Amino acid sequence: MAGGTYVEDDFQRDTTYIEDRITSDGAGEHEWPVEAGRYRLVVARACPWANRAIIVRRLLGLEDVLSMGICGPTHDADSWTFDLDPGGLDPVLGIPRLKDAFEQRFPGYPRGITVPAVVDVPSGKVVTNDFAQLTLDLSTQWREHQREGAPDLYPEALRPEMDAVMKRVYTEVNNGVYRCGFAGTQRSYEEAYDRLFTALDWLEERLATQRYLVGDTVTEADVRLFTTLARFDAVYHGHFKCNRRKLSEMPVLWAYARDLFTTPGFGDTTDFVHVKSHYYEVHRDINPTGVVPAGPDLSGWTEPHGREALGGRPFGDGTPPGPPSEGERVPTAHNPHVGPDGLVHA
Amino acid sequence: MAGGTYVEDDFQRDTTYIEDRITSDGAGEHEWPVEAGRYRLVVARACPWANRAIIVRRLLGLEDVLSMGICGPTHDADSWTFDLDPGGLDPVLGIPRLKDAFEQRFPGYPRGITVPAVVDVPSGKVVTNDFAQLTLDLSTQWREHQREGAPDLYPEALRPEMDAVMKRVYTEVNNGVYRCGFAGTQRSYEEAYDRLFTALDWLEERLATQRYLVGDTVTEADVRLFTTLARFDAVYHGHFKCNRRKLSEMPVLWAYARDLFTTPGFGDTTDFVHVKSHYYEVHRDINPTGVVPAGPDLSGWTEPHGREALGGRPFGDGTPPGPPSEGERVPTAHNPHVGPDGLVHA
Repeated sequence: MAGGTYVEDDFQRDTTYIEDRITSDGAGEHEWPVEAGRYRLVVARACPWANRAIIVRRLLGLEDVLSMGICGPTHDADSWTFDLDPGGLDPVLGIPRLKDAFEQRFPGYPRGITVPAVVDVPSGKVVTNDFAQLTLDLSTQWREHQREGAPDLYPEALRPEMDAVMKRVYTEVNNGVYRCGFAGTQRSYEEAYDRLFTALDWLEERLATQRYLVGDTVTEADVRLFTTLARFDAVYHGHFKCNRRKLSEMPVLWAYARDLFTTPGFGDTTDFVHVKSHYYEVHRDINPTGVVPAGPDLSGWTEPHGREALGGRPFGDGTPPGPPSEGERVPTAHNPHVGPDGLVHA
Repeated sequence: MAGGTYVEDDFQRDTTYIEDRITSDGAGEHEWPVEAGRYRLVVARACPWANRAIIVRRLLGLEDVLSMGICGPTHDADSWTFDLDPGGLDPVLGIPRLKDAFEQRFPGYPRGITVPAVVDVPSGKVVTNDFAQLTLDLSTQWREHQREGAPDLYPEALRPEMDAVMKRVYTEVNNGVYRCGFAGTQRSYEEAYDRLFTALDWLEERLATQRYLVGDTVTEADVRLFTTLARFDAVYHGHFKCNRRKLSEMPVLWAYARDLFTTPGFGDTTDFVHVKSHYYEVHRDINPTGVVPAGPDLSGWTEPHGREALGGRPFGDGTPPGPPSEGERVPTAHNPHVGPDGLVHA
């Protein structure tokens, strides 16, 4: 994602997205039909909102039906770019900038060019960049294309509770760290800081006695919290001044984050190099030199977390996904080993 | 202190100071005689180099013979100022800016106006701002004015070892954090970071088996290391990108720092509010918004440190100083209680 503005010194995320959806039958207004091979998910590994989609796609085994284009960590002034690809062109879409797919659909598109976005390959037009709906639709609309053993990340019985938890996590944590980092005044910063750590205290308490955020398996709620936690010590603690404590100093949340990190789909899609590069190099307004910190030491992420003692089964009645495909492996990532017993070995 | 420049993207501290000294007889060239009530020590609580002098003066009980003027944390473009005092004037020197004392001695003084500085009250002229020599002279030249029970902070027998340790601590740690924070390029930052943490690893190992840095009592070497450690998590970790780990994640150094913090003279002269305000508000080149982080949580500083088990006696054959005088108390400081048994109770 990229895009936001200031209202009376408070950072306000621009939450107007292209709200088209890809649905199983594509029958409604502003709906496109699910179709294997037709769409391309465009992401940046650096971005927490895009990282959600990368995780969900992988947990559900949609790699073969929904290809993925990967932008570099440091977008230019008005678009994420395919600078990691040979010749600087996405090999499927043939464009250098994600903006081109937005322009193809809406010439003169006035809003932020954000990831994740889904592009219709035949027409080259962006379909949606509505990150919140997008991952839920991968869970609910793409079922016939999901791998055998795919977990249910948005179980019907849990939706009311999940929606409430995810809303609070979004406003207070996912977006809360940005409100701290981009506060224009001391007052607005301190308000944002208090809200953030109040919510983290709530999560620390909630997760002390249950392994996952809602229910006893991994759900979309965990995916959404994880991508912010994974960036906490690497970026938000220093760069965004979210520094009451490091994640590694909040024992429950730290163990919870490590548990997910060593679960296939999470740590193996987390690219700390891209993450740090993005925030520190792009936000020159708060880091004028563009120097990227060498720390923190990340070795603690694979220390034993002990969360198995709380019960729960990461994939419920399903199974973990296999290893990432060669072309989608994060070079610096932790790739946990899944043994023949189906269990994860960090 | 304030003042430095860049040479090929590396931060270089301007180490040319006014090298006059105040000595017991004032007999040598560029020497002034020790005299009770004649001089004023000008400091800023924010500044680690000035904090050394505040600690040493207090440990030695020189408060009644060497008065202290306190500048605010946020100096202006060319001088530390007495903005905390009524009317913005130092009550003894009658000047608004420390620069005035430098100009009184050297009209057109071209270098940085730094604290700590010692000013000759009758003439209003600065005597010295040579921070490294200044504290050693308080120990060795002012002996006849020191309180009964004052510790020997620079014992003759230990000087060769102390000088070597203090030199490494100065180049790699005291000044090393600044080299990280003001690095102009990624390369120079990473070199500075590696040097800093190599030195911290050395200290972590050295202090694992001995309570103090040199010998078995508090010395000037501990004072010099302490003032950097006290600022580490509050400022250097985030603001200067010294973020391999927090001090609170380096178990030996953290316990060592807490031991000193709860020793009279250290924690009671540490003003975290001034410290954070200074760095984050003054260095707009690396923190353009001037927003001061609300963290870190500092409550851990008074947790039991367990260092007594290593032996050592903080004040050797001497005694701890009494509480700070009313006018010199840091409002937000930790003021440890010294019991009737002469022992320190955090």
